[in-house]
Amino acid sequence: MDFITILGFAAGLLTTIAFLPQMFQTWKTKSAKDVSFVMLITFMTGLFLWLIYGIILGAVPIIMANGITLFFNFIILWLKIKYR
Amino acid sequence: MDFITILGFAAGLLTTIAFLPQMFQTWKTKSAKDVSFVMLITFMTGLFLWLIYGIILGAVPIIMANGITLFFNFIILWLKIKYR
Repeated sequence: MDFITILGFAAGLLTTIAFLPQMFQTWKTKSAKDVSFVMLITFMTGLFLWLIYGIILGAVPIIMANGITLFFNFIILWLKIKYR
Repeated sequence: MDFITILGFAAGLLTTIAFLPQMFQTWKTKSAKDVSFVMLITFMTGLFLWLIYGIILGAVPIIMANGITLFFNFIILWLKIKYR
């Protein structure tokens, strides 16, 4: 695997797992009032379009990164609504 | 411009501008305690790697989308530290 591919994987891994600590913090503190609702909806819509984009292109890394990030943000949104 | 390119632009636009409402909410409420610090640092590191990836590939859409998203998240981090 060449440098640029490893760089892409590392970038995708970090921008995906970044939402895990947000998920756990919201779950632990039972509060997400400072997390913007409009941000979550806009970000999730964008991630969904990236997912469709990846599916059409048959690009597995785009599908995986955006699919997992979408799932994490869905949980954050669900926790935000639950604890509002 | 074909459908897939328009889809990619729409996806990139949404996942970029998503952080504007978060920025304005944090600025308005002067509070970001519910926004995970570890999330911001991990996400920004990933965005920085995407930026390098885009620069090496000479891919302007990757450079623009990740550069602007990184800038917005830098402001959110700065506001979080300022209002802690």
